Amino acid sequence: MPADALDPASLAPLFRPASIAVIGASTDATKIGAIPLVHMKASGYRGQLYPINPRAASVLDIPAFPALGAVPGPVDLAIIAVPEAHVLRAMRDCAEKGVRAVVLFSSGFAEVSEAGRRAQEEITAVARTARLRLLGPNCMGLVNFAEGVVATFHPAFGPGLAPKGRIGLITQSGAFGGLAYQVAQDRALAYSLILTTGNEGDVDVADGIAYLADDPETAVIMLYIEGCRDGRKLAAALARARARRKPVVCLKVGRTEAGIAAVASHTAALAGADEIFDAMFRQQGVYRCSTMEEFFDIGYAAAQTRDLPAGNRVAIITVSGGVGVLMADAAAAGGLDVAPAPQALQDGIRAMVPFAATRNPIDVTGQVVSDFGLLERAVEMTLAAGEYQAVTCFAGSVGRSPVNGPRFMETFPRLRQRHPETLLAVSCYHTPQFRAALDAGGCLLFDEPTHAQRALAALVRFRRGFDTAPEAAVTLPAPEPLPAGPLDEAASLAILARTGIPVMPHRVVQSAGEAAAAAAALGLPAALKIVSPDILHKSDLGGVALNLATPDAVGSAFDEVMARIAKAAPEARRLGCLVAPMVTGGVETILGAHWDAVFGPVIMLGLGGIFVEALEDVTFRLAPFDESEARRMITELRAERVLHGMRGQPAADLDALADALARLSRFAAAQGPRLKSLDINPFLVLPQGKGALALDALVLPA
Amino acid sequence: MPADALDPASLAPLFRPASIAVIGASTDATKIGAIPLVHMKASGYRGQLYPINPRAASVLDIPAFPALGAVPGPVDLAIIAVPEAHVLRAMRDCAEKGVRAVVLFSSGFAEVSEAGRRAQEEITAVARTARLRLLGPNCMGLVNFAEGVVATFHPAFGPGLAPKGRIGLITQSGAFGGLAYQVAQDRALAYSLILTTGNEGDVDVADGIAYLADDPETAVIMLYIEGCRDGRKLAAALARARARRKPVVCLKVGRTEAGIAAVASHTAALAGADEIFDAMFRQQGVYRCSTMEEFFDIGYAAAQTRDLPAGNRVAIITVSGGVGVLMADAAAAGGLDVAPAPQALQDGIRAMVPFAATRNPIDVTGQVVSDFGLLERAVEMTLAAGEYQAVTCFAGSVGRSPVNGPRFMETFPRLRQRHPETLLAVSCYHTPQFRAALDAGGCLLFDEPTHAQRALAALVRFRRGFDTAPEAAVTLPAPEPLPAGPLDEAASLAILARTGIPVMPHRVVQSAGEAAAAAAALGLPAALKIVSPDILHKSDLGGVALNLATPDAVGSAFDEVMARIAKAAPEARRLGCLVAPMVTGGVETILGAHWDAVFGPVIMLGLGGIFVEALEDVTFRLAPFDESEARRMITELRAERVLHGMRGQPAADLDALADALARLSRFAAAQGPRLKSLDINPFLVLPQGKGALALDALVLPA
Repeated sequence: MPADALDPASLAPLFRPASIAVIGASTDATKIGAIPLVHMKASGYRGQLYPINPRAASVLDIPAFPALGAVPGPVDLAIIAVPEAHVLRAMRDCAEKGVRAVVLFSSGFAEVSEAGRRAQEEITAVARTARLRLLGPNCMGLVNFAEGVVATFHPAFGPGLAPKGRIGLITQSGAFGGLAYQVAQDRALAYSLILTTGNEGDVDVADGIAYLADDPETAVIMLYIEGCRDGRKLAAALARARARRKPVVCLKVGRTEAGIAAVASHTAALAGADEIFDAMFRQQGVYRCSTMEEFFDIGYAAAQTRDLPAGNRVAIITVSGGVGVLMADAAAAGGLDVAPAPQALQDGIRAMVPFAATRNPIDVTGQVVSDFGLLERAVEMTLAAGEYQAVTCFAGSVGRSPVNGPRFMETFPRLRQRHPETLLAVSCYHTPQFRAALDAGGCLLFDEPTHAQRALAALVRFRRGFDTAPEAAVTLPAPEPLPAGPLDEAASLAILARTGIPVMPHRVVQSAGEAAAAAAALGLPAALKIVSPDILHKSDLGGVALNLATPDAVGSAFDEVMARIAKAAPEARRLGCLVAPMVTGGVETILGAHWDAVFGPVIMLGLGGIFVEALEDVTFRLAPFDESEARRMITELRAERVLHGMRGQPAADLDALADALARLSRFAAAQGPRLKSLDINPFLVLPQGKGALALDALVLPA
Repeated sequence: MPADALDPASLAPLFRPASIAVIGASTDATKIGAIPLVHMKASGYRGQLYPINPRAASVLDIPAFPALGAVPGPVDLAIIAVPEAHVLRAMRDCAEKGVRAVVLFSSGFAEVSEAGRRAQEEITAVARTARLRLLGPNCMGLVNFAEGVVATFHPAFGPGLAPKGRIGLITQSGAFGGLAYQVAQDRALAYSLILTTGNEGDVDVADGIAYLADDPETAVIMLYIEGCRDGRKLAAALARARARRKPVVCLKVGRTEAGIAAVASHTAALAGADEIFDAMFRQQGVYRCSTMEEFFDIGYAAAQTRDLPAGNRVAIITVSGGVGVLMADAAAAGGLDVAPAPQALQDGIRAMVPFAATRNPIDVTGQVVSDFGLLERAVEMTLAAGEYQAVTCFAGSVGRSPVNGPRFMETFPRLRQRHPETLLAVSCYHTPQFRAALDAGGCLLFDEPTHAQRALAALVRFRRGFDTAPEAAVTLPAPEPLPAGPLDEAASLAILARTGIPVMPHRVVQSAGEAAAAAAALGLPAALKIVSPDILHKSDLGGVALNLATPDAVGSAFDEVMARIAKAAPEARRLGCLVAPMVTGGVETILGAHWDAVFGPVIMLGLGGIFVEALEDVTFRLAPFDESEARRMITELRAERVLHGMRGQPAADLDALADALARLSRFAAAQGPRLKSLDINPFLVLPQGKGALALDALVLPA
């Protein structure tokens, strides 16, 4: 990604405009061209507002201007709320006026047709030429809560604006932004900024992330994404947020074919391969959600939590043993440590409640019905024990009880403040008042007990991601020139060897005699394969002979293979045969590099054999990366255990595998779009200390 | 399972008692011994109530009796609410009085200590001898909503009882039952019966399921389970519910080590292997949940739905394109068919909303803000198209809008009633009034849009499960006698062969000469293995030689193997060697049978090689079962595709695999506890039409 692709400073006129013109301002307060003005009259926006309307002296009691050119002072931001037929004209007016940013609501562009796509390109070109930043088209604009900028026609944002919070939300779906704002009213979700990017003619999700990464008002970033055009830019923006230790929570839709089809007719985003998004999110420490409730739940937890937990030990206190078991399952499944309570704590609980379970979960049992003080004391004793980074409490229907609700609205915040080093997450049936009290008191509150564990697991993961040493900058080799068209196996292996990836010893031979001699020199039994850039699937055509036990057998195989290929593929160039010893032992893997239209050079790792095909057990990384990132990549294989030695097999040489992955990633990054794909299949990882060997390879230049 | 283990008729005095005595009845209305009486005074219970209290003439204005024996008439049910020290005495009183059922609240039994376990056995013995059914100890009793029986001390069930509904809920956790009742107040969840089984001294979850399967008041069964002692009884009860076409929704906790440890200190249930529960639930069409919200969501959907959908085609209508994509993903991931809308429907939508997405999801776009009639018409047109079994609608915040909320409270039920053949599932932010209106109108309402899809997927699955032909009764072979101790490979293979499971040709030989001759007769290359009941891991001790190319090599191998074993395991009996041809091709699988303490004979299937170990890709079934069930079992392997032929390999002979699984299941069932385990590893499944072969086997009698 070019260094200047992320330029958050250029977005200041969009997010913090000193003056806003509304082109297509309507005197009917219910129209799209009026709603932003209605909102901003109530929001406390302190800049200049300029309604543009050729037929009205004022709009909603604000002095109006017949044309943008008639506005006396400078205009930072113009909101364009006219039908698509008039958009190009309005954009040109903006360029002429020296407007620095545009919010373009209008639909009817790339999301509907090819003609719309061309129209969108035209208006984008106007923006580029004029060096103004364009948000939209087909978007619902943005809201900056600190500045009272409500540049949206979504009715939910008025009248008056909720207080500003710590979450910056970016969404490609406009309606989703409105929903997110409405959901927020029910819990302590408050936003610094909501940005809807629509068709992303210019400003895209990555621009928004980069801005929020630098924005002092924003501590947590939430993303709704359908796809993107430039995956490297998105990754760079996420890396910037990670470097600033800002948790990123993401709802990326378009996982399935049905979802991808729906994306195409919505914001016209390029979907991009979902599994590469997934890998990139993992690489950048992004938490990916699969439902809206998970999205808001994790965003809430991240925003409520000032200090992310430094460890994963969690205590569970419950008024229902059954729910305690459920929470223990959820905690363990999420990677939390349900560590047994210290003996002193167990004794203390048992002294209060004779039949309590005390190990963790701590079950205060039905006895709590006659004395809710038991629950309070159990929570306090557990916090005071100092053994856990988080205490989770399932409190039944306490939050709705007329007697105990008010009591615990005071109790939980007090305990939280007395033990600020420990997170306190409560789940119970509750009233809005109860929620507000716990949220204000710095506790985490959940409807569903397992969701407390899920959120804690997410917080632990964020912290671990931030604490992981950032990748060192990777130096790329000079790209070596590639010929046009596919390379044969020998040429492909030669490229690997120059890249420093270990390759099995081999010779290319031109006769039966040479073949026999090569096999005798390299070692028996031997393999022999046709060498031809025109044959991609050698064994399908009889171009491979394996397990040849003697030099004579290798010699005969040479003649047979050449004859078979001459018959089966008479047009194919026959550059001889490749002779190599049969290598046994080790674990077969598959390494690949390919150029992705969205993400650029991408590296794939899979376990060989039928794992890749039967289970799609593969993982991806954006190239380039270093050996430590390669190590993390390896851990993402579901069948990773195979590499650690099973059934008495020795552990595989993971250093050699990581080294090869990193080298391949540097090679692919240096080549860029010149390399269509490179496959090493199999890449045999030998036992620890013995290295690894590429046994076959295929390089396809673009 | 013995046919008389399920005897739901015997539970009538427990669930529908004509008279109830409360032993330990308290005059303090807040005590456990008073709460059931308080509840039943308000619940409309019409039977006789007999408080037993030696020091009061009346309890809560009900005439009391000094002892159970003093009650004039018969007592169907006695509630025992005394400390554990007095329980045995109370049980004996019940036996003497001829009480037919007991609800025992008291804790302090098997869940706390070994002494408690013995005390529990003692009271259970009293119940068995007196032929009275015992619920508990350590339980919160039960509630029968139709009869007003509130035999529980949980405070949530009073004063007054919610109207009866169609859901029977059974839980091993008492507090969970109270929670389930409280959750129900928020949505159209209404119960016919809530049963808490606690330590299950006598009445267990399976008894409850069998009762509810026959109960005309109950249409849906919801289960909270921590474990069980008799897995066959549970499976039989679930099969009964399935035969009655009653959906079963289950929250089974204790998936993880942390959860299993928590179970042990809660209701002292035997956890049982979670993966066998899982397999058994799949076999019986039970929907297993992993969170409380999923549990209540699916239970709600099943209870609201009178006619389960006959197909999986779903339409998605949305006011937010982004949420539409999310719903499409969720639908596809759940196995629903997001089939494209018919052209006429698409044209109709486009005519209303020019920029609408129309394919499915149908996105009525932000235009709906100015005219909510668009949403109404889109839903109606889609219902009228008649192409879908369900229409799901995401309606944004309609359910909270002062204007549109009331309108759609009327619209959605009206549309539902006009198109009764199509399910209508709505998700939106809403008020309790909105929920009540849609629930009453027969719609399904969800908070979270993806949960509408999840629930629909569950309903489709229930229907498919009910429509699957029930398994034919399986006839068991006469069990052949097994010797004591492990069998050697040859003896194990002989047992398989008699069971009708195909076994590779082989001979047991006693000399090098016999070995060479056998190999020449059976085919080369050959394998040779030591035969000894004392050696379980032959290759670890050098007892295996493979790929022997000539008769001479086989002869030499005989001498070498015998010599190695004589040295490595001098104590082991050496019964000769087994010679067999090397078989290649096909797909390696692993078949196993073992006796499980909870479930009895269980059959395991896994793919061979490193799949089983690296990925734990195995699945289970309770034995016996027929070939069609074996076929379903095969489909549960994650790497199932390997069996269908990959990389140009032919498809494997699934008939042969299913036949072997069914035969193995009948063999294991006939042996019962006499068979500790039987492993066939590998079981080679050859290409279609070529059958399969057991290559090695190990039978371990108990």
